[in-house]
Amino acid sequence: MTPSEVREKMRSGEFSSPTSGLCEEYIQANLVILPKDLAFDFLLFCQRNPKSCPLIDVTDAGSYIPKMSAPQADLRTDLPKYRIYRDGQVVEEPTDITAYWTDDMVGFLIGCSFTFEDALIKNGIPMRHNEEGVNVPMYKTSIETSPAGKFAGPTVVSMRPMKEADVIRAVQVTSRFPSVHGAPVHIGNPESIGIQNIHQPDFGDAVTIKEGEVPVFWACGVTPQAIAMHMKPPLMITHAPGHMFITDLKSEHMSVI
Amino acid sequence: MTPSEVREKMRSGEFSSPTSGLCEEYIQANLVILPKDLAFDFLLFCQRNPKSCPLIDVTDAGSYIPKMSAPQADLRTDLPKYRIYRDGQVVEEPTDITAYWTDDMVGFLIGCSFTFEDALIKNGIPMRHNEEGVNVPMYKTSIETSPAGKFAGPTVVSMRPMKEADVIRAVQVTSRFPSVHGAPVHIGNPESIGIQNIHQPDFGDAVTIKEGEVPVFWACGVTPQAIAMHMKPPLMITHAPGHMFITDLKSEHMSVI
Repeated sequence: MTPSEVREKMRSGEFSSPTSGLCEEYIQANLVILPKDLAFDFLLFCQRNPKSCPLIDVTDAGSYIPKMSAPQADLRTDLPKYRIYRDGQVVEEPTDITAYWTDDMVGFLIGCSFTFEDALIKNGIPMRHNEEGVNVPMYKTSIETSPAGKFAGPTVVSMRPMKEADVIRAVQVTSRFPSVHGAPVHIGNPESIGIQNIHQPDFGDAVTIKEGEVPVFWACGVTPQAIAMHMKPPLMITHAPGHMFITDLKSEHMSVI
Repeated sequence: MTPSEVREKMRSGEFSSPTSGLCEEYIQANLVILPKDLAFDFLLFCQRNPKSCPLIDVTDAGSYIPKMSAPQADLRTDLPKYRIYRDGQVVEEPTDITAYWTDDMVGFLIGCSFTFEDALIKNGIPMRHNEEGVNVPMYKTSIETSPAGKFAGPTVVSMRPMKEADVIRAVQVTSRFPSVHGAPVHIGNPESIGIQNIHQPDFGDAVTIKEGEVPVFWACGVTPQAIAMHMKPPLMITHAPGHMFITDLKSEHMSVI
């Protein structure tokens, strides 16, 4: 199925499941919707933190059409599931947010790790969380983001263990894709970036790290959501975890080389 | 001299000349200052047009401190010369804009071609406009920018002629630096991008194209200024042409690989 065919099924309510593995050649994105009065600061925050918040597309104020990444799509209906946050708390997980949409909203689409994971797998580097059938482990770190307005806080990273021999190739492969988090932010000792216990992630699930393997850390798209939640805006809308927006952009077209 | 030493001379009024060739290892930047009410749309415009408007730094609303690129600098005094535009017309070229600064202003620093030219020269690709002692030729093209709010219009490109044998290396070298315009947008026939007469640039000066040479075109930092001028904001402040802001960022640190 093409991205537009899949989105059509989401729009009609026929499909409301996680999007992992769908339309593998295409970029999937995290969604954050905020009112216009917070949008400049959030856009600035993303611009200052491109590794954790790589922007794929931003809508005009009041528009639900992501015209750079999927000009026929509608951000109010074309994701399988959403989360509504009021004052930082999840209050609902609808499959359609038309009723919540107001004319001062701005939609932000932020690159997601599915794209670079696919590139790693194609290069023979297996993903442990896939092998173990769990979510990727994610950790709050001592790496501060560069604040903008009220948006400030720690960078969240995801971790993938791999053989020492695969680490250099992993850096090369992911460096090609800065718009989906790019190169790792850290390799090796978790304590260097403020992670006390690698077996107790702050989000997602723990995975096995085998003898001789090295943990490799990437900036994670959960960062902007965690930070936006922390500042408790009256209303914020995001995708539900794993239920991403599928764009019309092919991953290969987003590589810088 | 270090960037901060050069900026100190600009701040004291001792230095008010063009910055070409100064602090060669460091990123120089175009400056655009706009009021907050236009800043979201302009930031969005830059985000949507990263080849012509690669953002190096954006200040908080009301702040003249570019904290990501030169945290000790002051954008009101630390450029050698400015231009004040009122309703799209240049009205003054001061060396200090403290008197114009208001609490709702946002400063945008946009990557400049000096950085990638230096990389090309180091790779043995000479710059004809330097050899002939003139400004680089620039042209309005048929390549439309992606609009944002009132910001819309054609992409402006700069042109550098080179030997056929150098073209591939030029693509490789500049691809490493997306934050200073990155890879070319076009190679060869000027008419393909709407340039009728290569010997009559819209900005800058014509340069000689020798037998067997190919014109290579890069998106140009004049684009956002030309577009902002076109929409005639009540007040806009920029650097004077060639009188750039010198950051504390080393060019090599900005390469993606």
